[in-house]
Amino acid sequence: MLKVPDHQVAGHQGGHGQPGPLIDDSGRFYKPLQDDDRGAREAAFYTSFSSNTRVPDHIRRFFPVFHGTQLIEASDGSGQRPHLVLEDAVSGRSHPSVMDVKIGSRTWYPEASEDYIQRCFEKDRKSSGLCLGFRISGLQLYGSEEFELWKPERKLVQNLSADGVRVVLKKFVSSNSPIDPNLNPDCAFASSVYGGSSGILAQLLELKSWFEDQTIYHLNSCSVLMVYEKKKVLKGGSSDAEVKLIDFAHVTEGNGIIDHNFVGGLCSLIKFISEILTSPDECTTKVCLQNSDNKNEILTSSNECTTKVCL
Amino acid sequence: MLKVPDHQVAGHQGGHGQPGPLIDDSGRFYKPLQDDDRGAREAAFYTSFSSNTRVPDHIRRFFPVFHGTQLIEASDGSGQRPHLVLEDAVSGRSHPSVMDVKIGSRTWYPEASEDYIQRCFEKDRKSSGLCLGFRISGLQLYGSEEFELWKPERKLVQNLSADGVRVVLKKFVSSNSPIDPNLNPDCAFASSVYGGSSGILAQLLELKSWFEDQTIYHLNSCSVLMVYEKKKVLKGGSSDAEVKLIDFAHVTEGNGIIDHNFVGGLCSLIKFISEILTSPDECTTKVCLQNSDNKNEILTSSNECTTKVCL
Repeated sequence: MLKVPDHQVAGHQGGHGQPGPLIDDSGRFYKPLQDDDRGAREAAFYTSFSSNTRVPDHIRRFFPVFHGTQLIEASDGSGQRPHLVLEDAVSGRSHPSVMDVKIGSRTWYPEASEDYIQRCFEKDRKSSGLCLGFRISGLQLYGSEEFELWKPERKLVQNLSADGVRVVLKKFVSSNSPIDPNLNPDCAFASSVYGGSSGILAQLLELKSWFEDQTIYHLNSCSVLMVYEKKKVLKGGSSDAEVKLIDFAHVTEGNGIIDHNFVGGLCSLIKFISEILTSPDECTTKVCLQNSDNKNEILTSSNECTTKVCL
Repeated sequence: MLKVPDHQVAGHQGGHGQPGPLIDDSGRFYKPLQDDDRGAREAAFYTSFSSNTRVPDHIRRFFPVFHGTQLIEASDGSGQRPHLVLEDAVSGRSHPSVMDVKIGSRTWYPEASEDYIQRCFEKDRKSSGLCLGFRISGLQLYGSEEFELWKPERKLVQNLSADGVRVVLKKFVSSNSPIDPNLNPDCAFASSVYGGSSGILAQLLELKSWFEDQTIYHLNSCSVLMVYEKKKVLKGGSSDAEVKLIDFAHVTEGNGIIDHNFVGGLCSLIKFISEILTSPDECTTKVCLQNSDNKNEILTSSNECTTKVCL
């Protein structure tokens, strides 16, 4: 009944001696509790959040529904283990295009250990996060053909320049093949996925308003998951675009201060997406997409528009 | 004709073997160019900014007018030296209450030297900046009596907790003595200084809208100067509240990315000020203000409201 999810693009996956998440047919996502503080902190966040009456309903929908914790057999066969039981953000979708964007130029926080702070500090400096205020942690993207799926290596998308990120955000809403290096993303679905009153931009703006005001939680190292149904859009239907916040293993108390690191990063992501909606043709960046190390020519200069980006 | 300014609350002051700024009677402020990169970078910023047609007029007014550079005798008698010639932000005011707030949880930037990055990283962690997204760099505050002036030591205000910052932001707009430790700030002038269509909050919100969109400059380590005319407010007149951005020695190019560090910090400052306007009486924090080391009981817990804050 439980199985490994098809559409996970970031976060801890199973294998390599660690259990991964599982899903069931009823739309639940089972996330193994991490052994260290992170597991306890994430469970504490979900418990606090799900009973917090200060969180308005129109914001609550951006967070996965929490169904408690449950002891189940771990995916790696290591025996029973506590799992968070959550709403599966991509449940019921057959061809979901998914992007995981970690928000914030800083993933560490004052309350963390010195060792953790130093590791994050160095990692943030090497990733896109410091410059952009966010970084793409992973994505999967269906093409127009039935079985065409683009799922680039995480380490490549995490370190993209501003131009590289622009290309990926455009490919996310384009009808032409994400894999063909000779095709510029046509942004054919930008208005139906990013735009409109229920599109991703509108949802991000709603979140932004709340984050400018709420001082309850600081969502350190948390991700925005952007999902839509590629198959439906290709047939002229609604995109069913949805934004979810995920990964709360490093949440700390806000103590009366807004999460300014999250707000800044979110504003930056909003600006990137707004630009695609207002001027989708501005950059004519050529993209090649082979996932091999010798093709890893990632842009470092970020204001050059007619350059080649290889993922 | 040139003299040392009366109302400087932060930044490099004269003495200790370095020249300080000077002012004249016509409303100009002469800032000595720093010898290292900083002087050249600040001059380059003012030159670029003053001729940049992409900066809208309603935003330009938040920046001091730039009148070029000029060789003048340095304030420390060390001979002629190039100075930036700027608009004096407090010119024409007899009793200006002034607060200098450095915006951003991070004062360093990727282009800086490794040594500079490490020094800022450590300093940011020790100041209020990391937690709050901004820090008070200095202030002066007139009382209701003619010659009552509160000008606390900079090192004390830079490291305030959230509650300490709240108290100072309230004292800034209160009619009762800023120095008397037994008086809670009455926030009598909150609505005329922070509120209203031309108050400080409205000006900060206007800046925020621009910073959410502009990708030309990253104003690393820049300050918001908040000024108003205490004497006029005491007599029932207008506060003449004004916001100016100052200190551009660490500006870098935006390269198509918003200044998310500045945006986040500005949003946090806006939230603090909004709260004073909506619930000025929420905290009944007791404050004592002697500038002596053994009275330096600054709050470290930030969500405790009925505590004593000593500056």
